[in-house]
Amino acid sequence: MKKNYLLTPGPTPLPPEVCEALSRPIIHHRTPQFQAVLKEVSESLKDMFQTKNDVFILTASGTGAMEAAVVNLLSWGDKALVIEGGKFGERWTELCEAYGIKPIVIKVEWGKDLDPDMLKQYLEKESAIKAVFATLCETSTGVTFDIRKIAEIVKETPAVLAIDAISGLGAIDLKMDEWGVDVVVSGSQKGFMLPPGLGFISVSKKAWKLVEESQCPKYYFDLKEAKKALDKTDTPFTPAIGLVIALDTALKMMHGEGIENIFKRHRKLAEATRAAMVALGLELFAPDAASDAVTAVKVPRGVDGEKLVKVMRDDYGVTIAGGQSEMKGKIFRIAHMGYIGEFDIILGISCLEKVLKKLGYNFELGAGVKAAQETLLK
Amino acid sequence: MKKNYLLTPGPTPLPPEVCEALSRPIIHHRTPQFQAVLKEVSESLKDMFQTKNDVFILTASGTGAMEAAVVNLLSWGDKALVIEGGKFGERWTELCEAYGIKPIVIKVEWGKDLDPDMLKQYLEKESAIKAVFATLCETSTGVTFDIRKIAEIVKETPAVLAIDAISGLGAIDLKMDEWGVDVVVSGSQKGFMLPPGLGFISVSKKAWKLVEESQCPKYYFDLKEAKKALDKTDTPFTPAIGLVIALDTALKMMHGEGIENIFKRHRKLAEATRAAMVALGLELFAPDAASDAVTAVKVPRGVDGEKLVKVMRDDYGVTIAGGQSEMKGKIFRIAHMGYIGEFDIILGISCLEKVLKKLGYNFELGAGVKAAQETLLK
Repeated sequence: MKKNYLLTPGPTPLPPEVCEALSRPIIHHRTPQFQAVLKEVSESLKDMFQTKNDVFILTASGTGAMEAAVVNLLSWGDKALVIEGGKFGERWTELCEAYGIKPIVIKVEWGKDLDPDMLKQYLEKESAIKAVFATLCETSTGVTFDIRKIAEIVKETPAVLAIDAISGLGAIDLKMDEWGVDVVVSGSQKGFMLPPGLGFISVSKKAWKLVEESQCPKYYFDLKEAKKALDKTDTPFTPAIGLVIALDTALKMMHGEGIENIFKRHRKLAEATRAAMVALGLELFAPDAASDAVTAVKVPRGVDGEKLVKVMRDDYGVTIAGGQSEMKGKIFRIAHMGYIGEFDIILGISCLEKVLKKLGYNFELGAGVKAAQETLLK
Repeated sequence: MKKNYLLTPGPTPLPPEVCEALSRPIIHHRTPQFQAVLKEVSESLKDMFQTKNDVFILTASGTGAMEAAVVNLLSWGDKALVIEGGKFGERWTELCEAYGIKPIVIKVEWGKDLDPDMLKQYLEKESAIKAVFATLCETSTGVTFDIRKIAEIVKETPAVLAIDAISGLGAIDLKMDEWGVDVVVSGSQKGFMLPPGLGFISVSKKAWKLVEESQCPKYYFDLKEAKKALDKTDTPFTPAIGLVIALDTALKMMHGEGIENIFKRHRKLAEATRAAMVALGLELFAPDAASDAVTAVKVPRGVDGEKLVKVMRDDYGVTIAGGQSEMKGKIFRIAHMGYIGEFDIILGISCLEKVLKKLGYNFELGAGVKAAQETLLK
């Protein structure tokens, strides 16, 4: 018997209630039955985005929703500032370049948060920046950026602030309206405890003015069409009906727990995971800006990082994530995001300890689990 | 008790095997487990597309896959010919316009097939047409276009032929390679018996040359990136994992039945439905080019077409489709596509008869059901 456990930063595990919702017979989308669901999830998503703005549901991966942000806000030749501290920050830059928008890139060292003064300097030096693109939780490095601080700076300028919160929304705090974030993008397969396949995007009034001016070519991701449709409780194209129905279930679970309790749970799980790593003598990749959604850890000297992930998954059924791009083999990432409870973390750490021992890393067996238990008991 | 039956041209009903697959715990996409599934479905889709070309799986509605065709084949200022005989033909035109491509539109009367001579004339008259866009089954009118004939004409020119086969592929014959169709686009929620959320696109060698030259801005739908990823049994962005796994189940069922048997079943169901409508004294909307995937029928004088659909659905649980756009209230559409057996058609016709009687239409009760039974017994 090999039982499987998923501790990856997207997809995250599905609650059985969501699995059940996904297995129901399908209904047609242009019926009062589906419209009732669409209305409910569209309202309920606003609470998770902490906004009064519309939240549009797109049938796409999170990247599709990021593309929607770029092509709806900007036009060919516009200038944008990208805060780039990992693989997903780079995606904003690539998207801008694909659409003829000039990205001015603030390179942040992988594993670090942004120096706010640097952002101020760029915004003062460069005129005519229409949008600033940043990332809530940089999944590739396990960093949570201080979006509140970034928003404080950007909102004093004419630029709008767009955040990739694919990883993190519904797990980490992001007060869209209160902090003054203009565009928030997310996806279904992380904090929202669903399979991948839905993108979400919410747009402030300040940013909607750019939507009205934008000359980027677009059709499938045209938010003006999405808005027209949503005003009639509809979608411009056939939506991913099954996922939207399952979203209703997931959102009800999230409301039941309460958004503040969800954030607390994630913080606690993250603290326990970090304490365990330290107790094992391992080094956190982002000690100063560690995310509460995913913990990135340096692979210790002498251990094959790719083998570590492979053995945990293929021999013991525990799937964590390795490093991406330039971090391949150098870090591993344990997610504690979405439908994850404290004992899921314990089992993950226990499996990590077992495989580290087998790969010859020297430490006291049980030290990581114990440190996590101590944190969780507090 | 109100039991629900779905007879709409997308979404179509889900087999219980597909519902089960959708309800499974999710797995990570960058694992050997998922790669095995992706490899299998990518190969298996080729049989359904009747091609040796790659078939790319996109996380999007069918419209997203149509956009992928336009933005990967063409560039700003290019000329394209659109064969437009309904709402979905119009979508090709809108997509071209959104990306600065000049659509030359052949308007075909709704409910009719194209006159091939007209296509020849347009292709002779207009030079530099890079692509011809057409529709296999125009869901809005219940017409199946003669794609073989269209392909015969287009393949004698430098233009490529791109077909929206969202509605129809896996239900109606379309021999991509044999007929010389260059691009075929489809979606998950029709012939493939899945929920909506996946788009498919296959591109011939002739068309791939255009992909390499295309200057349309694109990122999420960039087929060159999709190709690079597929060559490594990967996807450029997180795929809709659950739907891809369910696709594996659906494709196995389709292979089990056999593609020729699937086409025969759809033909038989369509013939039975048409015979029933005629026996009820109703007029087919597209008698000369009737689709084997969906039957469009004129609402008889004195009957409220929108009420007919509403009463069938809300009072009796049988969901058929009304007319779209300019056909609203004027036609109704019964789909016999995907996971539909002969007795599903019988129950649909029986419900239609009941509601037509209640709405005051004069005919012999049971005549439609009997005519369908006679056809199905042959």
